[in-house]
Amino acid sequence: MDAQGVDLSVLALTPPGTHPLSPEKALRLSRAANDVAAEAVSRNPTRFRSLSTLPMSSPKDVAGELERAAGIGHVGTMVYGRAGDLFLDDPAYDGFFSAASELGQPVFIHPQLPSDAVRDSSYRGFDAMTDLALATFGWGWHLDAATAALRLILRGTFDRHPDLQIVLGHWGEMLLFWLDRADSLSRIAGLQRPVSGYVRSNFHITASGMLNPALLQHALSVTSADRLIFSTDYPFQRPAKEEIDLFLNHFSTDAEREQFSWANAASLFGFDLPSSAQDENA
Amino acid sequence: MDAQGVDLSVLALTPPGTHPLSPEKALRLSRAANDVAAEAVSRNPTRFRSLSTLPMSSPKDVAGELERAAGIGHVGTMVYGRAGDLFLDDPAYDGFFSAASELGQPVFIHPQLPSDAVRDSSYRGFDAMTDLALATFGWGWHLDAATAALRLILRGTFDRHPDLQIVLGHWGEMLLFWLDRADSLSRIAGLQRPVSGYVRSNFHITASGMLNPALLQHALSVTSADRLIFSTDYPFQRPAKEEIDLFLNHFSTDAEREQFSWANAASLFGFDLPSSAQDENA
Repeated sequence: MDAQGVDLSVLALTPPGTHPLSPEKALRLSRAANDVAAEAVSRNPTRFRSLSTLPMSSPKDVAGELERAAGIGHVGTMVYGRAGDLFLDDPAYDGFFSAASELGQPVFIHPQLPSDAVRDSSYRGFDAMTDLALATFGWGWHLDAATAALRLILRGTFDRHPDLQIVLGHWGEMLLFWLDRADSLSRIAGLQRPVSGYVRSNFHITASGMLNPALLQHALSVTSADRLIFSTDYPFQRPAKEEIDLFLNHFSTDAEREQFSWANAASLFGFDLPSSAQDENA
Repeated sequence: MDAQGVDLSVLALTPPGTHPLSPEKALRLSRAANDVAAEAVSRNPTRFRSLSTLPMSSPKDVAGELERAAGIGHVGTMVYGRAGDLFLDDPAYDGFFSAASELGQPVFIHPQLPSDAVRDSSYRGFDAMTDLALATFGWGWHLDAATAALRLILRGTFDRHPDLQIVLGHWGEMLLFWLDRADSLSRIAGLQRPVSGYVRSNFHITASGMLNPALLQHALSVTSADRLIFSTDYPFQRPAKEEIDLFLNHFSTDAEREQFSWANAASLFGFDLPSSAQDENA
């Protein structure tokens, strides 16, 4: 475990390149994973909710599996920003975003190992472990997710699907910090609104265990408290209750603390917390 | 001009790839540029100071030209984070950083068009102008500069040259926002201190005309007021005096306002402002 609690042995298992699954295998494994997760949730309905896994390397099957997964109880889905060379903003996925919007299924964009081309050109030259850490949890993961989200905005996705909701971890990856510049892309890309407008209306942001008040303050300067969601990066990060309470003190009202702690998540993912959980978290 | 005052016609002139000058041409042009700039400064000593241009595609000539340029009055140097495929942290440049440290010449890392490989893998698929804007002022420029700075830290540059001072524009590019994660790289890379420690002791940060109080607040949460320097992005950005005054109100003391407005720059680059300029700026 390093200083951030990240277990490097996991990274050592990361394959050297990005090799998307074959379409058939992707669909078969996605269905199996979604069935297993739905069953786990149904056994523990007061403790768990699940996000579905989708066959992203088979774009034609994505919307169908999203709908099937929603039907068996998944409250949203979690995808990478890219399947091999296919970016999430590729027109091949537009049916997916259309379905996510219609079904009210939020799409969580999770960081991913950058492509071999990006790794070769930006993240090599040190020892193997430093190369890997630079390309992943220390830097590259987050640029990859942020770039995917920005591309999705520039593609006009939220002009076509104004109700679609995206979730970004790690306080919005780096996108939230660069809106001054990114806003200037809207006119060039022919969008209806500035990039920051879509961030405020179509994105929710989770903390991913980064309990740093400066990051909270910046997020509040860019978007609103009803779009920020507590999360840890379990099992890599396991903040103690005391750390969490200390962090929650940086919100200015109890209402905002409740929004961040559970109410925003419940509202976004469409579920009620049992009243005992609300008491625990209040 | 776009919403940020960036003239896109300039971008249209950007060559499609990164083609560093030949070593001979780089040295010849650097010398000529440094002579022209030094002469302009000597004609207007109360108005101008200059940063030198270095023959980065000829690493063996870089330290020599830095020393010659310092001798004719340049107060620092401005470089890109990469010359073709050669990153600034390549051991080929270590003599340069050694000389910069010994001569007290700060090194400004300016954003650059990302490499063809990065553009192909991350910044294409839209119309040509959106591709280019995404790869440059809207996003890619800043990742390129930030990655170069982070790599320089990871290479142990500041363990070897503890007096070396780097300058980053645009509120520290994106590096200042990602220190929670980047800090975890220090142990893996075998550094003496966390990444954020080097940022606080070896980096100065300029505003580049981004007069956004949220970015100032974040910078103050990461580093100290004695390391922040006012700058515009002339001629692309030309904030009016009223905008600047409004922004300066976000500092909490007159002392910090003076540091940011001129005193930090004067101290870093080793020059006295004539008292009339001080009065103007006070």
